[in-house]
Amino acid sequence: MRSELSRLVGAEHVLEAPPGSPYNRDATGRRGVVGRADAVVLPGSAEEVAAVVAWCYANDVPIVPRGGGTGLTGGAVAIEGGVVCSLERLRRVRELEPALWRMLPEAGVSTRHVQRLARENGLFFAPDPGAAEQSQIGGNVATNAGGPHALKYGVTGAWVAGLEAVLAPGELVQLGGWARKDVAGYDLKSLLIGSEGTLGVITAVMLRLLPAPEAAMPLVVFLRTREEGVSAIEQVFAAGARPSVLDFLDGATLEIVAGGYPGEASQGEAGGAGGVPHEAGFALIVEVDGTLAEARAGRDALVELFAEVAVAIHEPADVEALWRWRDGINGVVTARRGMKVSQDVVFPLERLLEGLEGFERIAQDHDLRSCAWGHGGEGNVHATVLVDPAREEELEAAEAVGEGLFALVVELGGSVAGEHGIGWCKRGLLALQWEPRAVEAHEQIKRVFDPKDLLNPGKKLARYPAPSPARPN
Amino acid sequence: MRSELSRLVGAEHVLEAPPGSPYNRDATGRRGVVGRADAVVLPGSAEEVAAVVAWCYANDVPIVPRGGGTGLTGGAVAIEGGVVCSLERLRRVRELEPALWRMLPEAGVSTRHVQRLARENGLFFAPDPGAAEQSQIGGNVATNAGGPHALKYGVTGAWVAGLEAVLAPGELVQLGGWARKDVAGYDLKSLLIGSEGTLGVITAVMLRLLPAPEAAMPLVVFLRTREEGVSAIEQVFAAGARPSVLDFLDGATLEIVAGGYPGEASQGEAGGAGGVPHEAGFALIVEVDGTLAEARAGRDALVELFAEVAVAIHEPADVEALWRWRDGINGVVTARRGMKVSQDVVFPLERLLEGLEGFERIAQDHDLRSCAWGHGGEGNVHATVLVDPAREEELEAAEAVGEGLFALVVELGGSVAGEHGIGWCKRGLLALQWEPRAVEAHEQIKRVFDPKDLLNPGKKLARYPAPSPARPN
Repeated sequence: MRSELSRLVGAEHVLEAPPGSPYNRDATGRRGVVGRADAVVLPGSAEEVAAVVAWCYANDVPIVPRGGGTGLTGGAVAIEGGVVCSLERLRRVRELEPALWRMLPEAGVSTRHVQRLARENGLFFAPDPGAAEQSQIGGNVATNAGGPHALKYGVTGAWVAGLEAVLAPGELVQLGGWARKDVAGYDLKSLLIGSEGTLGVITAVMLRLLPAPEAAMPLVVFLRTREEGVSAIEQVFAAGARPSVLDFLDGATLEIVAGGYPGEASQGEAGGAGGVPHEAGFALIVEVDGTLAEARAGRDALVELFAEVAVAIHEPADVEALWRWRDGINGVVTARRGMKVSQDVVFPLERLLEGLEGFERIAQDHDLRSCAWGHGGEGNVHATVLVDPAREEELEAAEAVGEGLFALVVELGGSVAGEHGIGWCKRGLLALQWEPRAVEAHEQIKRVFDPKDLLNPGKKLARYPAPSPARPN
Repeated sequence: MRSELSRLVGAEHVLEAPPGSPYNRDATGRRGVVGRADAVVLPGSAEEVAAVVAWCYANDVPIVPRGGGTGLTGGAVAIEGGVVCSLERLRRVRELEPALWRMLPEAGVSTRHVQRLARENGLFFAPDPGAAEQSQIGGNVATNAGGPHALKYGVTGAWVAGLEAVLAPGELVQLGGWARKDVAGYDLKSLLIGSEGTLGVITAVMLRLLPAPEAAMPLVVFLRTREEGVSAIEQVFAAGARPSVLDFLDGATLEIVAGGYPGEASQGEAGGAGGVPHEAGFALIVEVDGTLAEARAGRDALVELFAEVAVAIHEPADVEALWRWRDGINGVVTARRGMKVSQDVVFPLERLLEGLEGFERIAQDHDLRSCAWGHGGEGNVHATVLVDPAREEELEAAEAVGEGLFALVVELGGSVAGEHGIGWCKRGLLALQWEPRAVEAHEQIKRVFDPKDLLNPGKKLARYPAPSPARPN
């Protein structure tokens, strides 16, 4: 296999993948999410990706597309073997047209580079999933990644004008394009977005950009209780405010990460750390943006809205430090007991309180400590239990908590996956959430794009175990 | 057939459809776009729609879903017979939650009613296709309709959180929902949006709304030439301005509709009509919105941007009259010679000038008078030739102009359909625009959702003639 692949991409771009290889892991950090890739191939162009897919398809070899490896559900890990196809060498920005608000990066360009290039040209690429230095735009599109600013600006897919992708059995096609409106065909572009490599391999992305907002002003709002916190989120919408970010940390999360909190401006200037108020049992990170005048007006309106109910409202001294703190929650929570199991779920906003309370109860029933944070304005919760990785019974309890949580999510009309994808860890959950006819259509579409079940097999399955591929269509 | 359908929806809701019936037409006004429906059925609920689809599917009867009948490509006309399923009795707004910015109208609710209900509750439903009184939200979603405000706010699909639809062979399913993020499954919702009744019948729509902008200020900017006009459009983006509308009328259109132009404020107050300046050979309708301060600042910036190049910049005396004038272009142009043939196409913005010039040349080559207007900020052009319906050779020339135009659009990287759909009139054009593998996927998806080819057959075909449905998948 390696010699044949070497012919396609050059011997130096076909790697072995021993068990400890980073190519056999992602950022999930859960047992069982370890790959056993037969080879790692690093094509240098979209045409080489097509050649690799064609070879795999002709030889019945599974192909697992891989971006920056920052996924949280095992989507880019070759758990059942096959070829890992890393897009990291597709790093060219093929086009950048600031006057037309658009950019065409190849799949392997890092998210941060896309954001930075946009900024340097007075523009703005809004999606901001975690780990932006490492994660790649192709992977962001393949998982339809979110992030805090998705609240106002939408998830990654909202900014994709078109895609270049390799479809089975190895053909490079363009779906969508620079035409700013297009209803000529079915929306195949949106079908590929979020398909996690199971329908095709994305090689380049035609991105829309926006003029950069002149100013963005975050506030940290501390509240006493979860009830007051969720009610405050609802009031933001009821008041017709339109923040760019509306994230939350519940009391348990706040307790774990309080030590790193960078504090507020007034105290920061006096030299001390801001400090999380003792009475705080819930926190919101709310950002408003726009022209300087708009941002100020928005901030003032929010301060007024929260004035009565908040324990404290901080304007951060160092905005970048605030976002580093926010981005670091994952790691700090993991460190508390050596491991955490987080589930990325969504509740409809009016069921968010029920969802958070229910999750805590489920964790308690399994004797696990829980905490939750996420994108409150969208009801998008990273529901987390802390476990000791050496204690088997805790790992099992964490699985059981997940099952209880998914049942609750479905009961409340939410989604089992908000922004981290289904990947391997959540395979089969869709059947809980969708009606049988829709599940069937999902599986039929997979067969249309991947009749041999070689594109990231086992990932994003609607049902688990999957029905036999031999079943008639 | 009628007695069986009567059993499902009541005899009074099954109508005959003689050749002259309005149910056998839409707003296309072109020869050949006339239906011969075997029956018109008016179900009273989503469940009844499911029953009708199930009956048709069991009895091999084609089913043509129909909204307000304002389509411009014959999409809702039963040209090859079958049952027309009009959604007009599904007029309930099942849910309206102003504090959560959302509304759940059934498919038959008029677009205007959705807009009005939103406004009455301090909210805003941005999509504004023409003929809003008559057109229905289900049809808007099925065609992914646009309108002037799509520039800033996106087309109809951008506001659809979820759909209720009947899939073959007659099952009611929900795709998407109120969860504000959801990557659990492939994006089947987006596949149904814009599918023009060929993949399923939409029965209700979960709509997202926005807080209403406090103010919206239109300007009419007159320029000397097409070159200057298109250049002005480009400069708006290059300057980082973000208007809510950026429509255009070329010189030929302006000449036809100038008589009804409602004029500008200063002159209007003095009692006279505003009048289109004699030197004007191109016009832009530019609107900015936001808070009053934002709208004013945006307007001032645009006035400054256009000051040097414009012949005149008008602030309309009567904003509603301006929009009525804009919405009436279609009718006034039709009246000029008794008939027009308009093609809704899109050019990438940087090819808009080439596109407009090329279209004029193609029309001249066929001895037809042409004009063009549309949504300039998106390169979305309603490219029109004026014909005398009694002159067969002109009707034939108009068809030939269309063919030349579509070839030009594809050559310039645009789309053969921006917001009016493919329907019947444009069947087969997709194969010009998409690569063969993508065309094949389009057809495979149709077969997944409609294995018997009974859902609006012959519409939105990727190729024409279509490959035999008996061909293996």
